[in-house]
Amino acid sequence: MEKKKLHTIELNNIRVKDEFWNKYVSLVTKEIIPYQWKALHDQVEDAEPSHCITNFEVAAGLKEGTFEGFVFQDTDLAKWLEAVAYSLSYEKNEELEKMADGAIELIGRAQEENGYLDTYFTILEPGKQFCNLKEGHELYTAGHMIEAAVAYYKVTGKDAYLNIMRKTADLICEVFHTEKYKNAVPGHEEIELALVKLYEVTGEEKYLNMAKDFVERRGTEPNYLVEESSQEWYVDVWHDPGMYQPAYGQAHLPVREQTTAEGHAVRAVYLYCAMADLAFAYQDKSLFDACERLYQNIVEKRMYITGGIGSNYAESCASIGLALFCRRMAQITRDAKYIETMERALMNTVLAGIAMDGKSFFYVNPLEVWPDACMEKTSMEHVKPVRQKWFGCACCPPNIARTLASLGEYICFTGEDSLWINLLAGADIQTSIRGKNVTFHMESKMPWEGAVKIRVSAEEGAEGNLCIRLPEYAVNPVFTIDGKNVVPRVEKGYALFHETWQNQVITLTFAIKAHFVYANPNVRADAGKAAVVKGPLVYCLEEADNGKNLSGIFLDTAAGLKENYRKDLLKGAAEITARGKRVVKKDWDGESLYRLTPVELEETEVKFVPYCHWGNRKTGEMAVWVKTLM
Amino acid sequence: MEKKKLHTIELNNIRVKDEFWNKYVSLVTKEIIPYQWKALHDQVEDAEPSHCITNFEVAAGLKEGTFEGFVFQDTDLAKWLEAVAYSLSYEKNEELEKMADGAIELIGRAQEENGYLDTYFTILEPGKQFCNLKEGHELYTAGHMIEAAVAYYKVTGKDAYLNIMRKTADLICEVFHTEKYKNAVPGHEEIELALVKLYEVTGEEKYLNMAKDFVERRGTEPNYLVEESSQEWYVDVWHDPGMYQPAYGQAHLPVREQTTAEGHAVRAVYLYCAMADLAFAYQDKSLFDACERLYQNIVEKRMYITGGIGSNYAESCASIGLALFCRRMAQITRDAKYIETMERALMNTVLAGIAMDGKSFFYVNPLEVWPDACMEKTSMEHVKPVRQKWFGCACCPPNIARTLASLGEYICFTGEDSLWINLLAGADIQTSIRGKNVTFHMESKMPWEGAVKIRVSAEEGAEGNLCIRLPEYAVNPVFTIDGKNVVPRVEKGYALFHETWQNQVITLTFAIKAHFVYANPNVRADAGKAAVVKGPLVYCLEEADNGKNLSGIFLDTAAGLKENYRKDLLKGAAEITARGKRVVKKDWDGESLYRLTPVELEETEVKFVPYCHWGNRKTGEMAVWVKTLM
Repeated sequence: MEKKKLHTIELNNIRVKDEFWNKYVSLVTKEIIPYQWKALHDQVEDAEPSHCITNFEVAAGLKEGTFEGFVFQDTDLAKWLEAVAYSLSYEKNEELEKMADGAIELIGRAQEENGYLDTYFTILEPGKQFCNLKEGHELYTAGHMIEAAVAYYKVTGKDAYLNIMRKTADLICEVFHTEKYKNAVPGHEEIELALVKLYEVTGEEKYLNMAKDFVERRGTEPNYLVEESSQEWYVDVWHDPGMYQPAYGQAHLPVREQTTAEGHAVRAVYLYCAMADLAFAYQDKSLFDACERLYQNIVEKRMYITGGIGSNYAESCASIGLALFCRRMAQITRDAKYIETMERALMNTVLAGIAMDGKSFFYVNPLEVWPDACMEKTSMEHVKPVRQKWFGCACCPPNIARTLASLGEYICFTGEDSLWINLLAGADIQTSIRGKNVTFHMESKMPWEGAVKIRVSAEEGAEGNLCIRLPEYAVNPVFTIDGKNVVPRVEKGYALFHETWQNQVITLTFAIKAHFVYANPNVRADAGKAAVVKGPLVYCLEEADNGKNLSGIFLDTAAGLKENYRKDLLKGAAEITARGKRVVKKDWDGESLYRLTPVELEETEVKFVPYCHWGNRKTGEMAVWVKTLM
Repeated sequence: MEKKKLHTIELNNIRVKDEFWNKYVSLVTKEIIPYQWKALHDQVEDAEPSHCITNFEVAAGLKEGTFEGFVFQDTDLAKWLEAVAYSLSYEKNEELEKMADGAIELIGRAQEENGYLDTYFTILEPGKQFCNLKEGHELYTAGHMIEAAVAYYKVTGKDAYLNIMRKTADLICEVFHTEKYKNAVPGHEEIELALVKLYEVTGEEKYLNMAKDFVERRGTEPNYLVEESSQEWYVDVWHDPGMYQPAYGQAHLPVREQTTAEGHAVRAVYLYCAMADLAFAYQDKSLFDACERLYQNIVEKRMYITGGIGSNYAESCASIGLALFCRRMAQITRDAKYIETMERALMNTVLAGIAMDGKSFFYVNPLEVWPDACMEKTSMEHVKPVRQKWFGCACCPPNIARTLASLGEYICFTGEDSLWINLLAGADIQTSIRGKNVTFHMESKMPWEGAVKIRVSAEEGAEGNLCIRLPEYAVNPVFTIDGKNVVPRVEKGYALFHETWQNQVITLTFAIKAHFVYANPNVRADAGKAAVVKGPLVYCLEEADNGKNLSGIFLDTAAGLKENYRKDLLKGAAEITARGKRVVKKDWDGESLYRLTPVELEETEVKFVPYCHWGNRKTGEMAVWVKTLM
């Protein structure tokens, strides 16, 4: 951990101009935000209703009715507002800002006199606030509201929303230091990282302290989350079957003693974000060590090759949380290994969570889909073979929206007289070095080619560092400055250039060939299988290219891979072709379940497409891990 | 369907003397019945309590307390009494009979004035009888009680239990012909087949009619099981989430229109048993055709190679039900194809459900087990890597007990002046042909060798048929009578011998070599895998013989199989050895999840043991379907 941390760039200082990323980022303002506004107002046809805006109107006394939807439904609006804030930082949009201001006014009206804000409890359980921290999600909801308020304030300078949320935060700081709540922690983490953000923007230390107290209390005895449900004031929110396992909410051990990532994956990574924030804020070595251990456990034992986490599930939100955790770890360590994981999560699972038209979403991101299985089996009803227009439990769509809207914060960091490039994506980046304006125009052919060019234009006297991440997957990297080869010092995955910036041109080229990756056979489901990877991208097979029954395909890994960039494929993508064999189908169709003669194989060509783009053609099978000839 | 059906043999006319079967059958009286009596009295240490006897005592007013356990807990005692009845038919046992008589007296005391009998409702919901047919299980419970009462009456001649259950059956016949219940059907079938048995022993036609009405009503509109829960008198038994799918209880279509086996597997096969009974009783062609269609759908689309049915689950009880359905179909068609399936279910899944000491049980019979996965994941808590001493939901253990206790009923049928041998198992069988006593002493080396010898001793004038099933897996079968080769007529899988029986010796020999079976690759989970089968037995790999990570083993199916009968293995069994390759372990232990170099393989010997005997050594991995070299 460094003494000074790197900062996320202010979003008005970066403009994403990248062919790959703009397949998605360009949709945010034009498609995603308006679409989700309609969803929050229950105006999307054939989609599950959100009830979100209606709940606020009922809580504000503007409408008759009751609360509907999940207990954390308010957060859909919060995440939408956060996405709007980021979007406005790129581009002014009066109409959008007016919509947001209206929503903020509605939130203010739904707030109770004492600062309490949560439409579920205001409508359904008045007077019963904070009587089920385990699943009531009030602190989680407050956390998302605070994040949105901070973002909106930073972009627009308007403090109405921030003041609403300060009032809520003040109430929380008061309530959760009373005798009754002295051991209390939220069942779903999120408030902790939000309070750190609120502290950073207001300078009010009690918010930071409250975050620290929540983190330090977690997993200590008496265990509040376990004991709460036997109190007479406890409110049953989700028909509690009385089987709460503290590890589900990372409350099995004090956080400093935790060595493995356990429980609900989104809760876990949101907690780890706050732990990283606090470790830095208090220069707390043992808390940092816990973060580092948990990170290692995730990447070594808990993470799918797609950057998905959470067994059986790989929820889009969990990968967003993982990216946020990795970003914080990189900020406080200047170690690009975290960016490698962040990039993997963002470019595979998070992007797979949204369709290429921005209007449908995955909640769950499996590595293999056979539509018949998830359509017929009710035990798999979370797993969908096609993206959905909306979810009753719609945490993921607006979470993806705010992530794409703030992509710039992932692309680069700023340090003292330095710029740190994380994602090798096309972007115009403005920063200040020694008080001088410097612009870095970055062009990139990633992820299809390892070719990055950065043109600098600077005011005179801008002496400082440009630190360019050199990805682990970059083979034979070559840097040039103004056409001359240079060999920069590389520290923890960043190539360091110290220059007096004028109008240099820096290039980075490297090989980024598609290759096979072989699964550790101790992972029972993948033993004997291989996946195809090209740089940060994981590839997959789709029925659209390979026909039915991907389980009957065996790759000939010795025959290598061919790549072919196709403009007409999924808005431009490299298709990868392998050789292999597949089961001769005609023998078996409609036949019995087994037979005495072996399966016959025939030669076949096998086509892979990027996992992040899967499911954008027609419904069908998909597989990341594929059998190999043995 | 034949005009006359074959009959199950009276159990006092058959004595099982078979090395393979007696590994289990010999335990029934000595171990299983006393053990389960203790379990019903909550006297097995470290086992989940049954509460069963206590519930009867409370309902009878003999004890203070309340009902505990599942709503169908009474059936544990019913199945135990049925097993006792069968056991007594083999061998008198005064002490056991006294225990049974005592239990029957207790049942009588727990019965209500009007004949109603179900301790859950008597204790917890008095006056609310038959107010939740969907999940209340009252008719299911009555069915098992009736089956037990019929068995006990037939063996002991005592009618106390039978009279108790006639009173209950009379009540059911009355109630379920009132206006309120005119469309009513049980949510869990069982009463239908039981009422047929009660009709057969009493000659009272209203029982048969009631069974027919229940079967005919199922799946017709208005759908009672769907509409029930909106009635004001409805009692919520299992915190109904209001998502009942009629197909779960086979109530999606009238039974004659059903073409696929749907829903809860035990419910399904118990229904099909009754359908077969009624099809014969009423010589009802269209009902029989439905049975035949459903049977074909099960064996072609729904059944695991082990004879397990029910997706995700392969519950022991479901395979017992399948065996009962097959037995009935064989009785009314004289077609041995059903026996082939019955044998598969009994010799694999049903036997796997019980440990070789008779004291622990599987509820779920998976085809692959990796203990870490089912011990860590709560979503798989039904799946256990080791047999359990008892279950809170203990339908399976006593169901296995009654099945083993009545094995004779599966071994052979009697017809008009004929004996039909189904299972080629060692047994002494007494029967009457043309009024003359005939004894068939059958010796068998099955399933290890295809060698059966039947010595006949008969009173003079016993002219009739001996019909010996010629299994589909018998290769190069040869029959002899008194040492001379004969080629009998074979009809629907039975070899027919018409003789005047004296003291002939008949032999049947055939090859029954172990071989590979190849999975249809459209079964996604098994594509490219093979299993090993020897006659009726399915084999499996165990960690005890093959070490950890069975997923890393690839069979060389071209190298064939070796067999070796070992007396010291699992109380005597043929071990089967294959050649193959397996992942070189040392490279991977403790390493990362994937790598760039392919998996390395080394030559290995692979050992298979019978699936029915798995899990009798130490806890470990198990697999039926194994990858093959491609």
